[in-house]
Amino acid sequence: MEKLKGLVAAPFTPMDARGELALDKIDALARLYEKNGVVGAFICGSTGEGVSLTFEEKRQVMEKWGKAKGGKVKALFMLGGTCLKEMQQLALHARDCGLDGISILCPFYFRPKSVAHLVEFCKLVADTVPEMPFYYYHIPSLTGGYFPMARFLALAEDQIPNLAGIKYTAQDIMDFHACRMFRNGKYNMLWGVDEALLSGLAAGAEGAVGSTYNYAAPLYNSIIEAFRNKDLAEAERLQQSAVRMIGLLAKYGGTGAGKAFMKLIGLDCGWFRPPVSSPSLEDVNALKRELEEIGFFDFCSKL
Amino acid sequence: MEKLKGLVAAPFTPMDARGELALDKIDALARLYEKNGVVGAFICGSTGEGVSLTFEEKRQVMEKWGKAKGGKVKALFMLGGTCLKEMQQLALHARDCGLDGISILCPFYFRPKSVAHLVEFCKLVADTVPEMPFYYYHIPSLTGGYFPMARFLALAEDQIPNLAGIKYTAQDIMDFHACRMFRNGKYNMLWGVDEALLSGLAAGAEGAVGSTYNYAAPLYNSIIEAFRNKDLAEAERLQQSAVRMIGLLAKYGGTGAGKAFMKLIGLDCGWFRPPVSSPSLEDVNALKRELEEIGFFDFCSKL
Amino acid sequence: MEKLKGLVAAPFTPMDARGELALDKIDALARLYEKNGVVGAFICGSTGEGVSLTFEEKRQVMEKWGKAKGGKVKALFMLGGTCLKEMQQLALHARDCGLDGISILCPFYFRPKSVAHLVEFCKLVADTVPEMPFYYYHIPSLTGGYFPMARFLALAEDQIPNLAGIKYTAQDIMDFHACRMFRNGKYNMLWGVDEALLSGLAAGAEGAVGSTYNYAAPLYNSIIEAFRNKDLAEAERLQQSAVRMIGLLAKYGGTGAGKAFMKLIGLDCGWFRPPVSSPSLEDVNALKRELEEIGFFDFCSKL
Amino acid sequence: MEKLKGLVAAPFTPMDARGELALDKIDALARLYEKNGVVGAFICGSTGEGVSLTFEEKRQVMEKWGKAKGGKVKALFMLGGTCLKEMQQLALHARDCGLDGISILCPFYFRPKSVAHLVEFCKLVADTVPEMPFYYYHIPSLTGGYFPMARFLALAEDQIPNLAGIKYTAQDIMDFHACRMFRNGKYNMLWGVDEALLSGLAAGAEGAVGSTYNYAAPLYNSIIEAFRNKDLAEAERLQQSAVRMIGLLAKYGGTGAGKAFMKLIGLDCGWFRPPVSSPSLEDVNALKRELEEIGFFDFCSKL
Repeated sequence: MEKLKGLVAAPFTPMDARGELALDKIDALARLYEKNGVVGAFICGSTGEGVSLTFEEKRQVMEKWGKAKGGKVKALFMLGGTCLKEMQQLALHARDCGLDGISILCPFYFRPKSVAHLVEFCKLVADTVPEMPFYYYHIPSLTGGYFPMARFLALAEDQIPNLAGIKYTAQDIMDFHACRMFRNGKYNMLWGVDEALLSGLAAGAEGAVGSTYNYAAPLYNSIIEAFRNKDLAEAERLQQSAVRMIGLLAKYGGTGAGKAFMKLIGLDCGWFRPPVSSPSLEDVNALKRELEEIGFFDFCSKL
Repeated sequence: MEKLKGLVAAPFTPMDARGELALDKIDALARLYEKNGVVGAFICGSTGEGVSLTFEEKRQVMEKWGKAKGGKVKALFMLGGTCLKEMQQLALHARDCGLDGISILCPFYFRPKSVAHLVEFCKLVADTVPEMPFYYYHIPSLTGGYFPMARFLALAEDQIPNLAGIKYTAQDIMDFHACRMFRNGKYNMLWGVDEALLSGLAAGAEGAVGSTYNYAAPLYNSIIEAFRNKDLAEAERLQQSAVRMIGLLAKYGGTGAGKAFMKLIGLDCGWFRPPVSSPSLEDVNALKRELEEIGFFDFCSKL
Repeated sequence: MEKLKGLVAAPFTPMDARGELALDKIDALARLYEKNGVVGAFICGSTGEGVSLTFEEKRQVMEKWGKAKGGKVKALFMLGGTCLKEMQQLALHARDCGLDGISILCPFYFRPKSVAHLVEFCKLVADTVPEMPFYYYHIPSLTGGYFPMARFLALAEDQIPNLAGIKYTAQDIMDFHACRMFRNGKYNMLWGVDEALLSGLAAGAEGAVGSTYNYAAPLYNSIIEAFRNKDLAEAERLQQSAVRMIGLLAKYGGTGAGKAFMKLIGLDCGWFRPPVSSPSLEDVNALKRELEEIGFFDFCSKL
Repeated sequence: MEKLKGLVAAPFTPMDARGELALDKIDALARLYEKNGVVGAFICGSTGEGVSLTFEEKRQVMEKWGKAKGGKVKALFMLGGTCLKEMQQLALHARDCGLDGISILCPFYFRPKSVAHLVEFCKLVADTVPEMPFYYYHIPSLTGGYFPMARFLALAEDQIPNLAGIKYTAQDIMDFHACRMFRNGKYNMLWGVDEALLSGLAAGAEGAVGSTYNYAAPLYNSIIEAFRNKDLAEAERLQQSAVRMIGLLAKYGGTGAGKAFMKLIGLDCGWFRPPVSSPSLEDVNALKRELEEIGFFDFCSKL
């Protein structure tokens, strides 16, 4: 697979009113991405509630994405977790469903004691499907796995032949930059901090993975375009809109409020499962008003 | 179920040389407990590698314990995890297998935002099996769920009728004490810090859950007895042996070294699964020598 | 100096209405301690606002305590801090004022990188006054110096001849116990967690340092007495009163509320300096009512 | 004072071989800044060892900088600490010495409980010298003061009329960006993460404060110039040199190794005081060789 460049959305896992999977909505997500210039889907990560789905549900989500993704959207599946054996089984299923790559988190109950142990663990998963690109998903604020990724690459290079890159959700820009520089840009470094996309671009990010690319891809594509055109004043102005939008996401509850944004652009994906809290209807209405004020409905993703 | 008093072991999950379940060893564990005065088994917690087992494996472990436990050992099953739906399915299976109680952790990827949210989440599991005692497993160093348990009890009392108590693995003695005092000792407070059992007893613990009660129950029973007999000098002397033994556990790798102790008392349970590291054979031999020096083989559990 | 046994109060630094030193109140504090069986004063620690006093003010407080302490109360002075040079100058002044010992914290802006570095740093202070007992003040929750104290003793033993012991304000009971055991109890281990005094006694504490021993010494002396008499039920009952009292301290603002307790027993020491917040008059009145309910005015220190 | 734009160095405090102040070297530092296009000095911050100097020494450093700074370099003095009273006295002395501004940290032993308390505390210092620009120094990794700065500005705007800006040493780019946007850029936001200067520029930083601007200002000025010229490829290439250089700083001990860099450019400032460790002579030589390899002596500051 070629390096992913541009925006990769972390899809919400669509649910119905009872909190059960609404698999039929996955087609609509894939079409939304195509229409809005999103080149990939990072499935069942934090946004996709991987940790809140049963093993069987994850298999169903995989199968559906394998059929829905089409030719333009690359589908990476996040398998992690704490149970190696289930990760290995899911990796095989990802391959069988025709997905384009897999990813795992740092195990987050028992944690590896060193970056070398982390590499060993990743290898046990990656080796299951040697023909598939493997991405490490670095999000230490949720996993507690505060390992330097530049060191990870140096150790993993020989151990994991199918290592493709890192989804990097942390703000250690020096470490990110060092990863980008590694072997003249050998690995696909995907920036995972939407609210600082512009700073990520300045640190060399070629692609970016995030939840807000579901519903505000046009805004971010404009940031990338302005950056490529060296119109930094415009890029900064656009980034301010992203900062304001994400400020509202935080104000209305963070992770759980993300699905409210999807309702507002017209692609209802239900709500998050517990323990993630969801906003009330009142809050959704208030959010809508505040989003109008910042011009969200002009720059949001269009169905 | 009556309150658990005395020692409750957190059983290792027996594995074979390939890292697969060795279910037949569970009988031997139950007999070991009976013989050494251990009154309960807290199954598939941290020691039991619950998070490293597949959903299907947890069901098999449950079934086996349901048959093996016999009349003297109470069996509590730790279901948590991060996926509510799997917890609910496992709770029903625990009931069907004739186990004596269930327990969950604070969800540890997405975390409840407040102690009230934590209570709500626990209720969703506890209500599945209203006839079974429900224990909350408090281990903030692994889950990040740093909530005051005295407040948890105050909120949960009305919400969770089958709340039985807390397995308390933290050293906030004031909070533990306040829980013990709550409604004149309504809840079964199980102390979960083996290396400080004596201090737990001084803070009112009636029962204690731990991994070292698998292989050193006689030592701890002596501590309890000395404490009950008000022979505090003797209790402190014995506690020193526990501190030395646990110092060796830490020295040889912590969690992963626990199964080495089982090999040394003659009940081989294999090794932990990754990402938990296991000691080398050399280390096991060195550990054995150091254990001999502190008299371990005199005070350890006997088959 | 002999080992300190029993209660050591951490005196509040008396202030007047403008927030300036009220040195004349120090005599009253010393008399309060004598009358209530408190054997030592740990001056200018957290309770004594050492970090909020100017260099010159610390010198004045020292001078006054040197004169006020009398024959029954031992006076230890807490010099730390982040500036080694000021610590050394203060150590010499402590000696000149006739105080009985000195103490420092782990430097808390720049921190030592290892426990060996911490020992080196302590030595630079302790060597200034080789004839004075030196105590290390372990309070990692405020300093960030999370070093194992058993290791500290092992390294410091040869380096710091005048090392006398540790004021241990943390709940790592295993580490505390190991320190107590070190060289058969060579060092004076002072337990610094008032709300868990009984558990500290069970872990071998001979002495205890705390802020609540200013105003509730009789209660704690009763706990110690019950423990020595092996009346553990009574000791636990008394400890419950301490837990309730400290629960109120936390409820009314923590550190800053401590001086409200002093007003209520009739020895007004003013308020803490910023950034520590002080309770309002309304809060003090509410606190008084709640203290009455738990019998505080029966077990508090008497002037 | 006008907004500081461009590079502001955090000067090392020069010491002699015995670890005493070498005040005469301060002139050389000021001349070094002039020659290398550094527009300001942020004195006695982390790099300047403010917390390791005595009160009296800080006064002497102030006096000397007041005379040495000349017309082109603005001098800001970092007063904090933990003792409000000393900060106020130092603020008055800063004014009397003709310095250009003052700054404090979040108090880092007792910490404010909320951002509102932090603002109140800052006001108590800033009001002492109402005619001087006041900067808040945000470095939560050292102080533990993890407060959102966008909220700080919103609250401080009315309370602290002489608030000039923030020295922002953290990588919360969204928060930094929101501060920059506040009231259309009312406040002087100084980026404090040298290793990510380019990302800071992309987030709108106009000025930057750092320790490596002492010895590598020409490199950073080139980054700024390339950024202003929209030559982002060149800017990124130059930033890589900064990342490599700072990688060496970390490799040879971090903070304490900074003074080795000064020796290598020929302006010996001695070593840091304990508890900060200093590299050995061997390490300095090894560092020199590695710096040669990355071209340091071409892009470093010139005397």
